[in-house]
Amino acid sequence: MSNKRIIVVGGSAAGPKAASRARRLDEHAEITIIQKAADLSMASCGYPYYVGGFFDDRSQLLCSPAGVVRDSKFFWNAKKITTRVNTQVLAIHPEKKSVEFLNPETDKTEFMEYDKLILATGATARKPPIPGVDLEGITTLQSMPDADYLRNIRDEGTIKKAVVIGGGLIGIETVEALHLAGIEITLVELLPQLLTFLDEQMARLVEKYVQTKVNVILKNGVAAFLGENGKLTAVKLNDGTEIPCDLAVMAIGVTPNSKLAKDAGLTIGATGGVVVNGYMQTSNPDIYAVGDCIEVPNLITQKPVHAPYGDLANLQGRVAGENVIAGNVAKFTGTIQTGICKVFDYGVGATGLSEQNARRMGFNNIETVINASLDKPGFMKGNLLITKLVVDKSSGLILGAQVIGPGDVSKQVAIWAMAVKAKFTVDDMANADLPYAPPFSLAIDHSIATAHIMQNKLKRFFNGISAEQLKEKLQNKEPMLLLDVRNPDEFEQMRLGIGEKLIPLGQLRKRIDEMPADKNTEIITWCKISLRGYEAALILQAHGYTNVKVFEGGIMVWPWTREK
Amino acid sequence: MSNKRIIVVGGSAAGPKAASRARRLDEHAEITIIQKAADLSMASCGYPYYVGGFFDDRSQLLCSPAGVVRDSKFFWNAKKITTRVNTQVLAIHPEKKSVEFLNPETDKTEFMEYDKLILATGATARKPPIPGVDLEGITTLQSMPDADYLRNIRDEGTIKKAVVIGGGLIGIETVEALHLAGIEITLVELLPQLLTFLDEQMARLVEKYVQTKVNVILKNGVAAFLGENGKLTAVKLNDGTEIPCDLAVMAIGVTPNSKLAKDAGLTIGATGGVVVNGYMQTSNPDIYAVGDCIEVPNLITQKPVHAPYGDLANLQGRVAGENVIAGNVAKFTGTIQTGICKVFDYGVGATGLSEQNARRMGFNNIETVINASLDKPGFMKGNLLITKLVVDKSSGLILGAQVIGPGDVSKQVAIWAMAVKAKFTVDDMANADLPYAPPFSLAIDHSIATAHIMQNKLKRFFNGISAEQLKEKLQNKEPMLLLDVRNPDEFEQMRLGIGEKLIPLGQLRKRIDEMPADKNTEIITWCKISLRGYEAALILQAHGYTNVKVFEGGIMVWPWTREK
Repeated sequence: MSNKRIIVVGGSAAGPKAASRARRLDEHAEITIIQKAADLSMASCGYPYYVGGFFDDRSQLLCSPAGVVRDSKFFWNAKKITTRVNTQVLAIHPEKKSVEFLNPETDKTEFMEYDKLILATGATARKPPIPGVDLEGITTLQSMPDADYLRNIRDEGTIKKAVVIGGGLIGIETVEALHLAGIEITLVELLPQLLTFLDEQMARLVEKYVQTKVNVILKNGVAAFLGENGKLTAVKLNDGTEIPCDLAVMAIGVTPNSKLAKDAGLTIGATGGVVVNGYMQTSNPDIYAVGDCIEVPNLITQKPVHAPYGDLANLQGRVAGENVIAGNVAKFTGTIQTGICKVFDYGVGATGLSEQNARRMGFNNIETVINASLDKPGFMKGNLLITKLVVDKSSGLILGAQVIGPGDVSKQVAIWAMAVKAKFTVDDMANADLPYAPPFSLAIDHSIATAHIMQNKLKRFFNGISAEQLKEKLQNKEPMLLLDVRNPDEFEQMRLGIGEKLIPLGQLRKRIDEMPADKNTEIITWCKISLRGYEAALILQAHGYTNVKVFEGGIMVWPWTREK
Repeated sequence: MSNKRIIVVGGSAAGPKAASRARRLDEHAEITIIQKAADLSMASCGYPYYVGGFFDDRSQLLCSPAGVVRDSKFFWNAKKITTRVNTQVLAIHPEKKSVEFLNPETDKTEFMEYDKLILATGATARKPPIPGVDLEGITTLQSMPDADYLRNIRDEGTIKKAVVIGGGLIGIETVEALHLAGIEITLVELLPQLLTFLDEQMARLVEKYVQTKVNVILKNGVAAFLGENGKLTAVKLNDGTEIPCDLAVMAIGVTPNSKLAKDAGLTIGATGGVVVNGYMQTSNPDIYAVGDCIEVPNLITQKPVHAPYGDLANLQGRVAGENVIAGNVAKFTGTIQTGICKVFDYGVGATGLSEQNARRMGFNNIETVINASLDKPGFMKGNLLITKLVVDKSSGLILGAQVIGPGDVSKQVAIWAMAVKAKFTVDDMANADLPYAPPFSLAIDHSIATAHIMQNKLKRFFNGISAEQLKEKLQNKEPMLLLDVRNPDEFEQMRLGIGEKLIPLGQLRKRIDEMPADKNTEIITWCKISLRGYEAALILQAHGYTNVKVFEGGIMVWPWTREK
């Protein structure tokens, strides 16, 4: 039997992973990676941190864990994988099982035959044909040359003002990187909120924090890039505003590079990604596809999604690499779309479905809660975490969670990601057995406490109200009693100032006669995080009040300006 | 209907939680906590950090999240719960449904009747009758007075030498606390290893690290405490060694306080803990028990265990508090015995079964792997994590995991705790969808990579060998080829020096003729963390070598002295 010939198109994350896995399982296969770019195995998720100066040695983006740059020599010596960089694949010919590419040395077209082909062609940052888009000073942050360009701007220090377009993950990371480079930033987002994997209130809290560092403009798009002598001088927004700047970074999402696949007759999905089965096999059984160029099922909705995450690319690459050698034995079944980003001193992450996504996907019977607490005890210098949990109301099935704050967001999102993947209900989470010691968590972990609050809500022990709902009631001037139940000194230091009455929880029972005579009066209770607000609501209900609501998360989740 | 009378015996963690939960669900119940100690709701897990000077305000151990000390006044005002502190319960009379206690003001016996009783009597630190045990300078670290005593020693600064007896969680935390107080410490443990929830090799790695801070003596117990004028001057060990010291802290475990329950005729288990069902109900349906005085099922073995953890105490208290009000509606089904502690700059944690515990419990068909890697990329200043994973070989069911190192251990243990609770198999974990961004993790999270290595082992892609097994082979002078496949500069900086040959992975294929002619020769391969060691093993196997083993975890998990 002759050696198996494997060609991998794409040399960033998923491609090299697939090639390496194939090599480990078959020492004798002939494995070739064809890579359009000059570099291989770039840690592309690390670009913002290189630009932001978290480290200075560019080669760290290309290194193996042992500190060796993963260039063509490395791939050959360590893995016996042939790599052809700066090489563009022009076409796939499935009927001949060959790949047509341009040899950069000869500038001539060549053909290479495969037994199995793996497409890992990635995605391209969107750059719509806005007037002026080709001016100097406009870039994306998606490739190694992009990272080099922006890092050079940091090192030169001449650019003072920049506009970042797009408030998604990459946009937010770019904002931080450029801010750390000492550049004054305006972030422009077309939608009414940042980070659309978050629900509006959570996004608003992130926005409030980002506003402390940079200028944020929502619901506004770019009408044109203005320039002089071919260089960018300002960004003109849809509403006519002109923002002077020397640099604009477009981060308005990516499009799967599926043209090669489409031209080869492979099935392409509605998202634009290549369609694959659980084995990462395309509609042609000898062609596999992995990474940012494909679509995969969302495991909750079973609907296909384009999920261009570096971790999934690696997992998919590992599966395809095994299957091209061993036959279809390994599976990647889909994603719950877990994601996280660092925003200065905040972590912002989510897993599963947000409330707005769940509703869009047809989940109508859902319940949510917001919980705010420290990640570990105050005496261990705990930091705030805010979680929004989304569950199916009848079954208690956990559909998703969003977590933000200066606390240990990464651990919280990991816990919820496991819960969603395990199809846990709220009751399962209520007795989760997590590692507790004061340096690491509260005795009742923030995630478990969130499940407890949800249990209380599902058992109808209390009714909740969100900041948005409360704001709407205020705007509609609905008659209600607003009750802050903290201590007077806390009230002096910080308060909403929306017409609330202060009755400390410890006095509420004695001062119950100060409550309205009409037991049907709507009463909204809260404290700093609304644990005491919850206890106050229970007392009022026990005294016959029928329309009491707890402002969930309390003052810590009020995303607008407070009186103090 | 008259108000329900609830008595809670015990006011530390589980008791107040149960009482508070009962209050929230029934505003009119008459709820009393009877507490032997002077304080209430002490954050007892925080004692070591108070002693160690992580914070200076003692009242922080007693505060609510809003910063109010939880004393009797607080419990009455905020929760309408009566508390009787400094009050010892003398007996329970189930037939009369009453509790007999000593009124500290009158010094007379009183009786109080209950409809439902909750026992939260805790556990007591063991203090065996060793000669000299009553000398001044010998303490435990389990109560608020203990914490006050040791904190005072820190503040006075006169004590220079101490012995800590017991290398479990509390012993290790005490070692850190006293070391931070500038005291020279010797840690003495009777068993051949520290932290028995870890397997030996993992414990050895922790020991090696602890040895860099304090003196550790294993396999040695205390024969006597020596003193002058009633004050401790030295600890005499079983082997005759005398260790001069002014302070000794005994941390050799706790015993459930189940005497009251036993005397009242309640069923006590083999662990010494009160037997309860999933509703936290004892053998008497009107008496519930929670916290460190009970035993609960281990959810993997279904065997009862004594699991005195603060987080479980709170969860159990919440369940009992609900059930005494609403009938048996809430459940706590058991524990997977997740635990963690901080050891200077290391985290040390575990969940589920260790290999030694699994074997003891009759799991004979198990597989393990050790994985060492950074927690996040090197360019983000990642720190080392070492994980040992234990699974059932035939089903791939995850039985437990142990994680140690300076990296983010807490998140890793939380992930594995969720996996064990969810009854995940290795295949489930191999495609876990965890939050990835460079500030938080590697593209393939350490936990997922651990599952991948286990998959490779279960699929028999490679054979592994542990540090102990390798050491044993060395001691037996077994003929084998030892192969380090790192780069020469790495070899110069650090190496085991146990007779190994260096062939960098990138040269192995070219130098395959340097390998023994006998293809059955035993060959052990490794690198720093053994990823390259694994690749080398695959190459050798592909060249016909039949007896190749990867030293799992590589140099990073060698728990003995290296040549350099």
